[in-house]
Amino acid sequence: MTSNVKSPHAHMNKLSGKTKFIEDMNLPGQLIGGILRSPHPHANIVRIDTTKAKAIDGVVAVITAADVPHPPFGPTRFKDWNILAEERVLFIGDEVAAVAAESKAALEAALEAIEVEYEVLPAIFETEDAMLEDAPVLHSSAPDNRPMHLQLERGDVKVGKEKAAVVRGGTYVINPIYQGHLEPIAAIASWSEEDGVTLWAGSHIPYLARETYAAAFGLPEDKVRIIIPPIGGSFGAKYVLKMHLIACALSKAAARPVKIVLNRTEDMISAHPRVPLKMEVEIGADEEGRFVYKDATVYANAGARIYWSPNIVATACTRPDGVYHFQNVRAEGHLCYTNISPTTCMRGFGNAEMLFAVESIIDELAEALEMDPSEIRMKNIVREKDVTIHGYQLDSCKLDQCIEKVKEISGWERKKDLPPNRGLGMALGNHVSGFRGIDPRFEGSTAVITLSSAGELIVQTGEIELGQGMTQTYATIAAKELGISADQILVKSGDTERNPFGIGTLASRSTVMGGNAVHLAAKEVKRKMLELVKETTGEDGVFCYEGIQVNDRVLTLEELAASYRGLHAGDQLTVRATYSPDTDRPDKTYYGHPSPNYPFTAHVAEVEVDPDTGRVKLVGYWAVHDSGTIINEVGAKSQVYGAVAQGIGWVTMEELKVKEGRVQNPTIMDYRMPGAADIPPIEIAFIDGSDPHGPFGAKSVGEVAIDPVPGAIANAIAQAIGKRGRALPLNPEAVWRLANDYE
Amino acid sequence: MTSNVKSPHAHMNKLSGKTKFIEDMNLPGQLIGGILRSPHPHANIVRIDTTKAKAIDGVVAVITAADVPHPPFGPTRFKDWNILAEERVLFIGDEVAAVAAESKAALEAALEAIEVEYEVLPAIFETEDAMLEDAPVLHSSAPDNRPMHLQLERGDVKVGKEKAAVVRGGTYVINPIYQGHLEPIAAIASWSEEDGVTLWAGSHIPYLARETYAAAFGLPEDKVRIIIPPIGGSFGAKYVLKMHLIACALSKAAARPVKIVLNRTEDMISAHPRVPLKMEVEIGADEEGRFVYKDATVYANAGARIYWSPNIVATACTRPDGVYHFQNVRAEGHLCYTNISPTTCMRGFGNAEMLFAVESIIDELAEALEMDPSEIRMKNIVREKDVTIHGYQLDSCKLDQCIEKVKEISGWERKKDLPPNRGLGMALGNHVSGFRGIDPRFEGSTAVITLSSAGELIVQTGEIELGQGMTQTYATIAAKELGISADQILVKSGDTERNPFGIGTLASRSTVMGGNAVHLAAKEVKRKMLELVKETTGEDGVFCYEGIQVNDRVLTLEELAASYRGLHAGDQLTVRATYSPDTDRPDKTYYGHPSPNYPFTAHVAEVEVDPDTGRVKLVGYWAVHDSGTIINEVGAKSQVYGAVAQGIGWVTMEELKVKEGRVQNPTIMDYRMPGAADIPPIEIAFIDGSDPHGPFGAKSVGEVAIDPVPGAIANAIAQAIGKRGRALPLNPEAVWRLANDYE
Repeated sequence: MTSNVKSPHAHMNKLSGKTKFIEDMNLPGQLIGGILRSPHPHANIVRIDTTKAKAIDGVVAVITAADVPHPPFGPTRFKDWNILAEERVLFIGDEVAAVAAESKAALEAALEAIEVEYEVLPAIFETEDAMLEDAPVLHSSAPDNRPMHLQLERGDVKVGKEKAAVVRGGTYVINPIYQGHLEPIAAIASWSEEDGVTLWAGSHIPYLARETYAAAFGLPEDKVRIIIPPIGGSFGAKYVLKMHLIACALSKAAARPVKIVLNRTEDMISAHPRVPLKMEVEIGADEEGRFVYKDATVYANAGARIYWSPNIVATACTRPDGVYHFQNVRAEGHLCYTNISPTTCMRGFGNAEMLFAVESIIDELAEALEMDPSEIRMKNIVREKDVTIHGYQLDSCKLDQCIEKVKEISGWERKKDLPPNRGLGMALGNHVSGFRGIDPRFEGSTAVITLSSAGELIVQTGEIELGQGMTQTYATIAAKELGISADQILVKSGDTERNPFGIGTLASRSTVMGGNAVHLAAKEVKRKMLELVKETTGEDGVFCYEGIQVNDRVLTLEELAASYRGLHAGDQLTVRATYSPDTDRPDKTYYGHPSPNYPFTAHVAEVEVDPDTGRVKLVGYWAVHDSGTIINEVGAKSQVYGAVAQGIGWVTMEELKVKEGRVQNPTIMDYRMPGAADIPPIEIAFIDGSDPHGPFGAKSVGEVAIDPVPGAIANAIAQAIGKRGRALPLNPEAVWRLANDYE
Repeated sequence: MTSNVKSPHAHMNKLSGKTKFIEDMNLPGQLIGGILRSPHPHANIVRIDTTKAKAIDGVVAVITAADVPHPPFGPTRFKDWNILAEERVLFIGDEVAAVAAESKAALEAALEAIEVEYEVLPAIFETEDAMLEDAPVLHSSAPDNRPMHLQLERGDVKVGKEKAAVVRGGTYVINPIYQGHLEPIAAIASWSEEDGVTLWAGSHIPYLARETYAAAFGLPEDKVRIIIPPIGGSFGAKYVLKMHLIACALSKAAARPVKIVLNRTEDMISAHPRVPLKMEVEIGADEEGRFVYKDATVYANAGARIYWSPNIVATACTRPDGVYHFQNVRAEGHLCYTNISPTTCMRGFGNAEMLFAVESIIDELAEALEMDPSEIRMKNIVREKDVTIHGYQLDSCKLDQCIEKVKEISGWERKKDLPPNRGLGMALGNHVSGFRGIDPRFEGSTAVITLSSAGELIVQTGEIELGQGMTQTYATIAAKELGISADQILVKSGDTERNPFGIGTLASRSTVMGGNAVHLAAKEVKRKMLELVKETTGEDGVFCYEGIQVNDRVLTLEELAASYRGLHAGDQLTVRATYSPDTDRPDKTYYGHPSPNYPFTAHVAEVEVDPDTGRVKLVGYWAVHDSGTIINEVGAKSQVYGAVAQGIGWVTMEELKVKEGRVQNPTIMDYRMPGAADIPPIEIAFIDGSDPHGPFGAKSVGEVAIDPVPGAIANAIAQAIGKRGRALPLNPEAVWRLANDYE
């Protein structure tokens, strides 16, 4: 039931509908679980009575705060979580009680029969309101509702301002959007007094989730086992979730396995959209178009609890400074608790958001200075061997070539002569390949390779396949090192009890972190296998497609496995290798070199705006990437296609409309995401180049591919309508209003 | 649910009734399974109709041969097994069909409702009959019903016979006995199309069982997972069992977990007693009491199928020649198929059986030569540094000291002046500590030690705890090497998917094979931990009870674990070590040095025989052992106590009475085993001494402790009644008949 996939099949199975997701799984004796949620954005729980619910035929367990432990815990240092709301509810959708029942009918009847008396409290929804003197306090640990307040300055922005010939900027607003995973959020928990709890859930950071959940229940970590079935998309939504804990608590109470599948509405109201941001950003340039400062203030709405929003604020405040030399930068970040659903990660993780502002402003500066947008960019970008203002060491950087190439393939020169209502927009992006600081204790990855008796090389990793093609990439890395067919390699992951520790799939880390570990292990297994051939045949062998060539014959991996077992008491050849990157945990001022390498990209979008409706149609898209050596080209291109499509939805369509804490459009019908007809032809190119720190020279691609999308599209729209939109989404209504100066 | 025990608790839990055996376990959705068995010793199956059985309410699956695969398979090279009888049944109790049902009532009704039409065939029950020209053939692979016919000679027995001044011998008969495990044979199987089958069963050689079961179902090995819950005794009965396969087949058919628990009668008729032997043995001695030859012919009744009876025959034919220098030996072994339940291993494994004959004959030789039984033994025993006639290299052997010591503590000199009806008998024994040849491919063991985040050293092994105290022994070995408290060590085993490969617990191999592997791994983990201390503190550390002392402070294992994880990307310190013994697989003539070392022992039994009833009362028992360094004294003594008690039952009480293939006494009430009142005070001494090949100098103790028991008791009885009993059991009727010359 884990994601032990021979790499190519995984995606085929998804495409053909054969993949079994959690919803398709059933354990013997399994109950159906459901959650009673708060209808109020902020209220005291005065009374809960579950008597009637418990009496319903087919209801096996009904739990409330009284039935679960309440230690301080949470996935980050802000330990503001609970399993079920103890005294207060903090948002519409907050988890108040839960039921496990034999049937859906019994479950629904029981959820209705739970009596809850609330005392409604004043609520806050916007960051401005959260910071008011007399605002209600959501968590006593943050009396000002600001769990995080970041301030940093490098260089001297005052000096930069004095040098500036042109200044542009404004307030940029990032819409709360739904990650839009096709597979709804689901989990099965099976609790046993003896063995602890086993949780089947789509977490892509299961080892950190295990630590969080163990703390929640006061269990030792080895009594929590997380198994990851195939994941049908996450994009940041499925890291660590309270519904996982509730499934565990229900299974404990019922002493039977419990499955919870959120329906799409629950998923959309409770499962943590992209952090909404308000960003006041200003960039100044001298007469020659050299940037002299950047000044940014970010207001981030964390919602009712902390997931990874602090890291997103820090990323927004720093990461784009690794694309351009701004010379002097100042950033301030305010993260506020409010009475909306907790907000969290989504592909791009703060960087895509701030780049939307930065790339918009740069186009305005170019216009003011009468420079081509590509020219002002080329003048200011970071270059190979640079150390950026926050300390990133760029041992590879082909951003200049990305710009040249994207101009070439997009026919950039057309920009000057476009027909009316058309626009071509450019934007750049960077990212990390893992980030030293996600886990304050360590970074890196471990791979274990075993030569099975059947002659397969089994690669075990703690990193997680969530559709990004990790298993194919790891199989390719091992096969490339050994010089054998990737068909003989089986990548296994997704079980905290069987596989080695991994931080998991976030911060675009899987190719470089896990990939380097796999590469190290493959080198060691190669050495040991050649040693074995020498020991058993007296000859030197050479790897070939099917195995190891020794003189005139090929020893198959199966034969080698039998030889090894014969010499080693039946044990299988097993190697374990750890990759620990030579990076820094950023210091208190956010300075440091946190990633082994940094991918770069330049995108161009071409749009046509319908002047009557404001509808933006993408007519072309070009993406050129410096992600070092491309190991898995199909996978890498798929990441770019997907990210661009996702970006198009984000910029031109999507928005969770939240009114007084209530999501107004919590269905896929009311929340429009792009379909195939919305996506233009996307042309992708990779710049040749190898980074010294990646496996075979690779850098990441998963998130950098979305980073420039908002900026590129916004810049294209600005040309098409002659007006600048600073709030996402730039949907038909917004674009029409802008174009027609209709506030 | 696996046997992950902090060592001291395991036995306490058994004593206090807290241990959960398979019968106490239940999986969600589990069905009850049962087996329909043949009522005939040999018959063709003409017709099976399961229609009525399937129609019974609550019956989920009914399977026959038609529902299971029929590849050639079996646990040894004699691949004569099936999952369910295909065309013929071969013994009373042979498995014909099986049912999985919701309730016991439904199960029993279904078993009764299965219609089977048999054509009864002529049957054979004794080895003599099996070898007759016109005997019915049980397996076409052995047209003479003799799957094995062993012949060996070393030296020249003819020359020995010419030299002999005295010859004694006769025909010795070994009773079929039940291993008498308290926990009945049970299994739970859970089959999933995706993951294969998980089997909870008490096998103590689960990795070899996995290979056998995978072959039976045509699955790859990694689709068969065997988990070993605490085992309530086995003594050889629970290695690999057809009922395990039937549980798997039922679970597959029912698509739900299935539990089968044999009732005691099923257990006793179908679950493979000790191989009954008939042994014609003759030993000659010269005038000075030096043995000049031994000539033995063994007839072994394998029953209907092969488990490990061939190995038992080979052991009977060779192993006792490692106690004495017989100078010239000849042995012939006939293993025959018959229509009784397959017979298999029990503690002592052929050696205890042949030693019964040898030790009986030696006493007769001593009498003929007017020597003290201890004197003739001392004159002929093997000594340290000897190489025995079959090639065993005795790098340690303190058998002479065992004899001296047992004489001293038993007051041997009393033998001459015992009151009437009393007897003192001596016997010697040897054994192996693992046997190169159980698995033709390899011998040895692998241990993996992990420093957990909680600061425990987790020792993983593929060997199995079945009550012999292995976990305590391994924890002690690791603690002794490291110099820390054994409380910080957790030994885990019993899951083929999680733990490294191990051949398992048989041939008295766990202390030396697994123990050496644990010792090697402990040395490596010690080196790595001290290296870590040096790396992190710059100082040299020294292990102490609680952790590692560095200058004035103690670094706990938890602190070390955190340091290690910090430096290694979150991975836990893990070492893997394999012990491969420097031994030989015996050649075709059974020559070789198959074990790293050999334990020795001398026992003395004192009996009083009631002349009116023939009842033998043990009044005293003394056991002196050379098992090298004793690592776990409580465990080692427990092995001796248990083996002597078991031997007393074997020799004086127990016998499965089989008449025309039908067990006449298949209940614990009718099959009397010893109780506390039957066991005399047992005095145990261990000779100091260290063997160069054992962990800290240890040798095995589990089986050597039963090897001399039959001979010692038989010799004591012979003195008490003045007659020699050559057929076991020497129960009251047999002894009374002997004493009264009543045939």
